[in-house]
Amino acid sequence: MKVLRRSSKAAIWSEAYRRSALSIGFVPTLGGLHEGHLSLVRQARLECDRVAVSIYLNPSQFNSDEDLESYPCDLDADIESCRAEGVDLVLLGQQEDFFPENFQSWVLVEDLARELCGAGRPGHFRGVCTVVTQLFHVIRPHRAYFGLKDFQQAKIVKKLTEELLFDVEICLMPTIRSQDGLALSSRNDRLTETQRAAAPALHEALVEAGNLISSGETSAKAVKEFLLSRLAGVAGCELEYVEVLSAATLGEFPGQVLNTSGEGVLVALAIIFEEVRLIDNIQVQDAGVSDQVESGSEGGS
Amino acid sequence: MKVLRRSSKAAIWSEAYRRSALSIGFVPTLGGLHEGHLSLVRQARLECDRVAVSIYLNPSQFNSDEDLESYPCDLDADIESCRAEGVDLVLLGQQEDFFPENFQSWVLVEDLARELCGAGRPGHFRGVCTVVTQLFHVIRPHRAYFGLKDFQQAKIVKKLTEELLFDVEICLMPTIRSQDGLALSSRNDRLTETQRAAAPALHEALVEAGNLISSGETSAKAVKEFLLSRLAGVAGCELEYVEVLSAATLGEFPGQVLNTSGEGVLVALAIIFEEVRLIDNIQVQDAGVSDQVESGSEGGS
Repeated sequence: MKVLRRSSKAAIWSEAYRRSALSIGFVPTLGGLHEGHLSLVRQARLECDRVAVSIYLNPSQFNSDEDLESYPCDLDADIESCRAEGVDLVLLGQQEDFFPENFQSWVLVEDLARELCGAGRPGHFRGVCTVVTQLFHVIRPHRAYFGLKDFQQAKIVKKLTEELLFDVEICLMPTIRSQDGLALSSRNDRLTETQRAAAPALHEALVEAGNLISSGETSAKAVKEFLLSRLAGVAGCELEYVEVLSAATLGEFPGQVLNTSGEGVLVALAIIFEEVRLIDNIQVQDAGVSDQVESGSEGGS
Repeated sequence: MKVLRRSSKAAIWSEAYRRSALSIGFVPTLGGLHEGHLSLVRQARLECDRVAVSIYLNPSQFNSDEDLESYPCDLDADIESCRAEGVDLVLLGQQEDFFPENFQSWVLVEDLARELCGAGRPGHFRGVCTVVTQLFHVIRPHRAYFGLKDFQQAKIVKKLTEELLFDVEICLMPTIRSQDGLALSSRNDRLTETQRAAAPALHEALVEAGNLISSGETSAKAVKEFLLSRLAGVAGCELEYVEVLSAATLGEFPGQVLNTSGEGVLVALAIIFEEVRLIDNIQVQDAGVSDQVESGSEGGS
C-alpha cells in the first residue's frame, strides 16, 4: 500500500493505472475511519482493480472552528485500517495542495444545497463540492463511493458529477448502524455516556415516522409534528432541523402532500448534544421504509 | 476529421488517445472562427499529437439575449476552417449535454472575476468557468489554448485550472490584430463602416497609454485620465470601462502607484458601438509595452 502526501504524486499513480485500463475505486474521507467508511472501501475493493482512499480534514467544509478542531483524528489507526482492507493508495491531503493562500475557485450546487444541512451550515456544501472536484481530478476514479448517512451530500455529489460531465460513477451505499440503531459517525466518540444512551432514539423516531408514512399518512406537517413531539422526549438534545421532503429534489412536496413513488420521501434530522452535532435520515418509498437506497447500478445492499 | 455532437462520444475519442499516451491539444470556442482562433489551433497543431476544437455558443456566459442572438454563427464555414488547419476532432456542443433543464452546478473564481468584464457582465465568468470545466472533463486535454484578447478570461481559466488541480496546461497566446490594429473579434463583423473606421483608435489609445507608463508615468489616475480624454474623441462609441490595474491580481495597485515589474500593468477597456461590445488590452512590463504575454513555457510570440 502506497501512502502519499502530494496530490501530484497521487495523480501519477492514477494515470499509470488508467493507461493500463485498470479500474480505480475511490473513497474520500475526512479521517476518523469507522465501519461506515470501511463498508465503502470493501465495496470498492469488490468492484474495482485498484482502491484509493483520501484522508483530508478539509477545513473549507467546516463552518465552525470548534467542530473542525474537535474532529477525531488518529492517522496511524486510519492508515492501519486501510492496509487491513487491502487499499492500494492512501492520499493524505495537504492544505497547501488543496486550499493554498488566496484560494478563490469554488464549485457549488444550488438548489439541492439550500435546505437541511445547507441551511444551517453556510459554505459547507461549497467546500464539499470543491474538494470532491479536486480529488476527482487527482485520483481520476472510475467509481467513487459515498454513504447515505449524508444523504444530501450524496445527492449533491451525484448531481455535480452528472452536470459537470465527470467520467465518474457515484456509488451510494447504505448507512451503517450500531446494533442499537445509532448511525455510525466519527462524532459519536465525543458523546458522553448519557448522551450515547439517549442517541438511538433518533433512529427509532425516524423509523416510526417512516412507518406512519408507509401506512398512509400523506401530510408532511403531521409527520413533522409527530417527530417533534417524539424527539422532545430525548434528554439533553437540541434540535437543528427535522424535515420531511422530496428525496428527489430535497424540496417540499407540492402542497406538503407526501408521495412515496419514485425516489419517495426523505425524513431527515440534525440534532445537537451540547457541542456534538449528529445527523440521520430514512427514505420512504413505495417499497417500504428503508434507511438505505438501492438505486439500480449505483449501489448495493 | 471527426465531427461529433454528443459529449459522451467525444469523451470516448479522448480516452482512446490518452491510453495510447498521445497528447491532446484543445481550443474551446463559441464559433464564429477567425484568425485569432486559428492562431490557437495552429499552435496546438505544432505542440500536440491530436487537436480538438469545440464550437458551442454557451448561453450561460451571455448576460444579454440580444448579444447571444446576434453572435455570428456559420457552422459550415467553421468546420471547413478546422478541416483546413488539420484539426482531428470538432465537438459541436449541445445544450442538453451542457446545460439541461434544472441545471444547478457551477464553477466560479472570486477575486479575479470582480473587476473589468466581471463588473458589467454578472454571471459571465461563472458561465465561462463552468463550461471550461465541463469541456475539460469531456476532452481531457493535455494543453488548452486561450487568447490574450480576453486577458481576464485567460487569467481566470489559468487560476481555476491550478486551484482545482486539473491536469491541463493552459497556453496563453497573443492577440491577433487587423493591420490597422483592431483586435480580431467575431463581433467586428457587426460594426457599420463608420464604426469599423473608428475602431482602430482603441488600440492606438492603449499603445499610447502603454508608452506613457513605459516612459515613467506611475499614476494610475493620470493614465486613466489620458485614456478617457483620448477615447472621448472616438465618434459613436460609449465607454463601459477603462482600467489600469495589476496584471497579476486584476485589482488596483496599492495607492494606485503603477509598477511594471513582474506581470506588470494591465491597461484594459470595453467600449460599445451601439449594440456591439468590443474589448481590448495591453500589458506593460519592465521589458516594454506589449499586447501579448510571453510567459515562459505558456505561450509563444
